[in-house]
Amino acid sequence: MRLQILGCYAATPRTLSNPTAQVLEIKNHLFLIDCGEGTQVQLRKNKVKFSRIQHIFISHLHGDHFFGLPGLISTFRLLGREKELHIYGPKGIKEAITLLMKLGNSWTNYPLIFHELESKKSETIFEDEKLSVTTLPLDHRIYTNGFLFTEKEGERKLDVGAMAKYKIDHHYFGEIKKGADFTQPDGKLLTNDLLTMDPPSPRSYAYCSDTAYFENIIPLIEHSDVLYHEATFLETEAHLSGTTKHSTAKEAATIAKKAKVGRLILGHFSTRYKNIEHFKDQASTIFEAVELADDGKVFEI
Amino acid sequence: MRLQILGCYAATPRTLSNPTAQVLEIKNHLFLIDCGEGTQVQLRKNKVKFSRIQHIFISHLHGDHFFGLPGLISTFRLLGREKELHIYGPKGIKEAITLLMKLGNSWTNYPLIFHELESKKSETIFEDEKLSVTTLPLDHRIYTNGFLFTEKEGERKLDVGAMAKYKIDHHYFGEIKKGADFTQPDGKLLTNDLLTMDPPSPRSYAYCSDTAYFENIIPLIEHSDVLYHEATFLETEAHLSGTTKHSTAKEAATIAKKAKVGRLILGHFSTRYKNIEHFKDQASTIFEAVELADDGKVFEI
Repeated sequence: MRLQILGCYAATPRTLSNPTAQVLEIKNHLFLIDCGEGTQVQLRKNKVKFSRIQHIFISHLHGDHFFGLPGLISTFRLLGREKELHIYGPKGIKEAITLLMKLGNSWTNYPLIFHELESKKSETIFEDEKLSVTTLPLDHRIYTNGFLFTEKEGERKLDVGAMAKYKIDHHYFGEIKKGADFTQPDGKLLTNDLLTMDPPSPRSYAYCSDTAYFENIIPLIEHSDVLYHEATFLETEAHLSGTTKHSTAKEAATIAKKAKVGRLILGHFSTRYKNIEHFKDQASTIFEAVELADDGKVFEI
Repeated sequence: MRLQILGCYAATPRTLSNPTAQVLEIKNHLFLIDCGEGTQVQLRKNKVKFSRIQHIFISHLHGDHFFGLPGLISTFRLLGREKELHIYGPKGIKEAITLLMKLGNSWTNYPLIFHELESKKSETIFEDEKLSVTTLPLDHRIYTNGFLFTEKEGERKLDVGAMAKYKIDHHYFGEIKKGADFTQPDGKLLTNDLLTMDPPSPRSYAYCSDTAYFENIIPLIEHSDVLYHEATFLETEAHLSGTTKHSTAKEAATIAKKAKVGRLILGHFSTRYKNIEHFKDQASTIFEAVELADDGKVFEI
């Protein structure tokens, strides 16, 4: 799993800082998470291949997470896209995009499929053989979801030495990887544990932005490998987090600690701060394994 | 009059080229003309003071002229704007912006006033003592207007020498500048032409983008000081101008020549071309006083 930050700053796009967007590479998918204004230029700068994006997840309909989407959809059209594009986001997103396409008389020539969300409970919104995506209902000024990306347990790893030792034909490999035992020609049973090793343990990534400090998410993200949690404010502005429904660095760290996640990545920094290192300083007093997002930064998970 | 190009490339924003937006400084106004995605960042890069913009003119509702507007309106709010903002654009623009504000529950705390356009005839949409703005109905795939910005004839210039010679008190200066004659204490009449000089002749700027070659605009823009005309294609792609309703460099030059304008500025270049100098080469075979727009370039008019 590989997370590429395209933008991680709050509110308005600026010359050197971009609003929220990130790309998650997971099990051969390239998921775009949020799409602030300028995301398509950030995709180019970071050399992301446009055609690989087939699923876009939008947390909420504030401009800094969403205003890059109409342009991206339109650019896909101009690039001659034919593949389906799936968009997951709050109810209303379809009406907005459709109205903009209607006003521009610019309908896509590829299938554009909306999956509108309105549940306040966590639900699975995407699933295939290798992973699932579930929503993480958050506490923000408008209806907002985070997203939990979870790999599924993969097939068992063949023990190549055992295959040779027991002279097992490769035709049986598929079944054995799925967990089957093997009966030798002489009738002797070889149980699967003699033939395979555990697969790499499945990993998970939780994206939580934007949100106030919200303990309801803890059971949903417990033991995640990586949590990206918004941290708009430092302690000096902690009094603003209540009214704006954003979090401080310390609040994000508290969630990470209580949910016993592996690592915490902070983002969605207010552009009022010159030096984002203070976010790390403050969060690490509560939770040690903390890192800072930054535009263009890549995290291997 | 001063024209600052923020973006002048067609279709999709890229790392080094921006979709259409420009700022016209005229008689103490700062008009924003079109607002493609990323315009607010271009305004910052070009050090334009956000609060000076009170009027935004949108030619048509294709994304590369319009998708930066929702974000700019939202940024004005975040910056604590209180002054009115007037938006002139095709019918539907109000519905689109209002829907986006509703979905984000992000209403402006400053007055946002829409002037929706739907006439296919030229009309005056803004006027004060010093200038007027009229629409230039264009021929594009959707309803589109160019805009003609025309200064009004200013007050006459006082002849300081004459004021001294005839010992005219400064209390009379206002009336004389407006064209009044002056009667001396001895009853002798001094006609205005003895006291003043002609004011600088009023200037005009015509913005025409996007449009196919469209002779109907010629009488409307005749003798304009500067014409900005879109030139999406070079001759090699001339066959595309009909279906896409765009112009070639030569077509733009032909309009400039027939309308007898002072100077022609070309813009809205397709990003397929590596070297925009060819636009100048091809246009100048028809009309000599031709210049190329480019992002960040400033033209004194």
